[in-house]
Amino acid sequence: MTTPAPELIARFSQIVGPAHALTEAADIEPYLIENRGLYRGRTVLVLKPGSTEDVSAILKLASETKTPIVPAGGRTGHVGGHVPREDGADIVLSLERMDRIRSINAAGGYLIADGGAILADVQKAADEVDRLFPLSLGSEGSARIGGNLSTNAGGTAVLAYGNMRALCLGLEVVLPTGEIWNGLRSLKKDNTGYDLRDLFIGAEGTLGIITGAVLKLFPKPRGHQVAFAAVETPEKALDLFNLASNRCASALTGFEFMARMVFDFTVKHTEGARDPLATKYPWYTLIDVSTSDSQQTADQMLEALLEEAFEAGLVEDAVIAKSQGEIDELWHMRNTMSEAQKPEGGSIKHDVSVPVSDIPAFLHEADAAVMNAVPGARICAFGHLGDGNIHYNISQPEGADKAEFMGRWGEVNKLVHAIVLSHGGSISAEHGIGRLKRDELAEIREPIEIDLMQRIKHAFDPAGIMNPDKVLKSRG
Amino acid sequence: MTTPAPELIARFSQIVGPAHALTEAADIEPYLIENRGLYRGRTVLVLKPGSTEDVSAILKLASETKTPIVPAGGRTGHVGGHVPREDGADIVLSLERMDRIRSINAAGGYLIADGGAILADVQKAADEVDRLFPLSLGSEGSARIGGNLSTNAGGTAVLAYGNMRALCLGLEVVLPTGEIWNGLRSLKKDNTGYDLRDLFIGAEGTLGIITGAVLKLFPKPRGHQVAFAAVETPEKALDLFNLASNRCASALTGFEFMARMVFDFTVKHTEGARDPLATKYPWYTLIDVSTSDSQQTADQMLEALLEEAFEAGLVEDAVIAKSQGEIDELWHMRNTMSEAQKPEGGSIKHDVSVPVSDIPAFLHEADAAVMNAVPGARICAFGHLGDGNIHYNISQPEGADKAEFMGRWGEVNKLVHAIVLSHGGSISAEHGIGRLKRDELAEIREPIEIDLMQRIKHAFDPAGIMNPDKVLKSRG
Repeated sequence: MTTPAPELIARFSQIVGPAHALTEAADIEPYLIENRGLYRGRTVLVLKPGSTEDVSAILKLASETKTPIVPAGGRTGHVGGHVPREDGADIVLSLERMDRIRSINAAGGYLIADGGAILADVQKAADEVDRLFPLSLGSEGSARIGGNLSTNAGGTAVLAYGNMRALCLGLEVVLPTGEIWNGLRSLKKDNTGYDLRDLFIGAEGTLGIITGAVLKLFPKPRGHQVAFAAVETPEKALDLFNLASNRCASALTGFEFMARMVFDFTVKHTEGARDPLATKYPWYTLIDVSTSDSQQTADQMLEALLEEAFEAGLVEDAVIAKSQGEIDELWHMRNTMSEAQKPEGGSIKHDVSVPVSDIPAFLHEADAAVMNAVPGARICAFGHLGDGNIHYNISQPEGADKAEFMGRWGEVNKLVHAIVLSHGGSISAEHGIGRLKRDELAEIREPIEIDLMQRIKHAFDPAGIMNPDKVLKSRG
Repeated sequence: MTTPAPELIARFSQIVGPAHALTEAADIEPYLIENRGLYRGRTVLVLKPGSTEDVSAILKLASETKTPIVPAGGRTGHVGGHVPREDGADIVLSLERMDRIRSINAAGGYLIADGGAILADVQKAADEVDRLFPLSLGSEGSARIGGNLSTNAGGTAVLAYGNMRALCLGLEVVLPTGEIWNGLRSLKKDNTGYDLRDLFIGAEGTLGIITGAVLKLFPKPRGHQVAFAAVETPEKALDLFNLASNRCASALTGFEFMARMVFDFTVKHTEGARDPLATKYPWYTLIDVSTSDSQQTADQMLEALLEEAFEAGLVEDAVIAKSQGEIDELWHMRNTMSEAQKPEGGSIKHDVSVPVSDIPAFLHEADAAVMNAVPGARICAFGHLGDGNIHYNISQPEGADKAEFMGRWGEVNKLVHAIVLSHGGSISAEHGIGRLKRDELAEIREPIEIDLMQRIKHAFDPAGIMNPDKVLKSRG
């Protein structure tokens, strides 16, 4: 395909006004890249609509002229979903100006936000009316709600509150044709026809553009406590999780784990991070509980859990946070783990899930396969144990050539994903498919599944203009 | 359309074997009706496949010969979704022989069941491995999992655990073409393409037949307690719910409410039912809490809640159950409310939802409108207050002619649904659309929404054979 002609650029620009249509290379630059440096696209135009009607007008014109559109939110995605293709034919549509909290209903337990609202702003708006919006992830200061929904974002609170899909009651979507679907419902129960909402959630902007959303709010917990506990093996980490799950049930609001390697990197490279334990251990867990009645209940629950875990021989050593500052410190360490790998050179990433009970087996098998293929590799496994979700990241061997190591990305992915699939797992637990895993998805899934997705894509986007070549390969 | 020819009946029957192909009128009779007597269909053949492969072969032949198929589970639905059409062209496919629990993984937190497994059997299987499958509804002894999924069933545990959609991890579906989609995944997190699972859930058998499902299991609560509390007004019931929600958070596992009228019917007609309070009040609530740690916590939580509610003037009188027997008694009363209306004559039903905060306003407006239209009507409002879901049922005036009263079903629906819609509510909170609300849905929704559903239907079922004329009107 070719880049849009100047007169077409002018027609698109007119919709949003010249101040909101970027055409200068320097202005466009931030929209061409993603944070891991895996993709670099090209475009001649970035549009910043100010309203749902603007988005509608843009997509109407795009459909008529068969101009491909790539939607962009906070651009914090990990799979190249928001990056335009290399041929320069795509126009980028950024939601960044549509960043309002439209309304908030504390008693009703919901708020309505623009698709471009920043996640941290939504959390803050909920907090101001004494409610909790639980989605929590490292990039929450820049990630935007439309992107969180389009990728069905996960994060650290999924165990208790579910992922973004579970936190959304209704949507407003502009369809590829420019038509507007107003599904901004705020009902807890509504069984009236096909579930269009969940079809748009996780579709990575290939079926339409999410311009607004009704998000669920929760009562704020009155007690919150965090423990950091060392364990000897992944098996013991799993046993500890099962114990915590049985004892705390829905009060267990987080159960993270991390290998010693990535913990060491974090202590070394993250400002203010420190090892809270006196001795070093092979594995660590972070246990987060939130209780509805009082702080005392949270403290007692966690103390009783650790006591039982020590008696059962599951835990080597542990600390309970003594202040909100210490809680924040422990979570900050966990949230900066991916970042802390950077000074150690290249990292080949996996965002995988297996049934929770298969985590130890997966780790043993994957470690063996990776160490065999890349001797000296430094395996930085960490993640959301309670969700079966492992960020299985592999830092290059010390002193290795970074480019050469990163050149083995596909080969190492293949090794690890084969083990994931042998456990009935997922090759993308929470980051989505985008460009990065599109071809692999088509390989690992039965043809009927890909075919059903293609049929939906074609039914919603007959002109094939919505974020083409993401998730699915464009037809013809 | 015409009834299938004898040679076609023979071909279909051969797939399942003559013992499992019903053609005698007496055998077929139970498949032609639904429990409210609103519809009576006709068919010449009921097929009882024994395996997913059988179902596949049936749908393949049906697609080739354009023979309409109506799937049937426990046939407990309320909207005519499982009833064949009157012209006798439809063949009924019953899942009743496919009723196994295929496997159970307590540590992994899931089980896999056939589409025809009975809900109570699933609950029992979970219980036997010390886990909870929380879906709970009046018809659980006969309702089947495939139907629970196809209608996205709700019930009394939605407040804490969500509806059926939230309780399902994966599906096996036979598509209208006979192709089998194996989506039996048991992962908590899996962001790999469009959400096909949620598209089949709630589609009422119009996009394919659910033959298997992976269902989530939960740790069993260690404490459980129920209170029955009288309140003066719907406003106070709502205030009490908000207080309970703040104090108990995720430990609040049920919050039901009922008008005096339907409570009186229940005490009168349900065996063993009795009024636990000494005086009569206009409204009642049933408050259910489940705690993860101990029975003591549940007891204390409920006592503290009621104490605070009394002090705030929200509650007139209340009792806390003194034994498991009393807990069961209170829930049995709630679960038999719909049944208890039957001896009182005809009942015009509504299964609606509004935002929780709008419940009092809805009740006042609807009561006024109904009493104006049908003087002497006995309004039996009850339901899941915490979900915003009201079963707004209207028993005929005493001594009125039942047929004449029931003849006003559409007229009264229209009145009530207009008020529901003015509050942004749903005309089907948990029972689905089926035949009953199909035309009304097309009227109240924007054309784009119905069009998107039609596009999906056509993409999945181009021959138009899957449960035709349910949810959506058949094209052409």
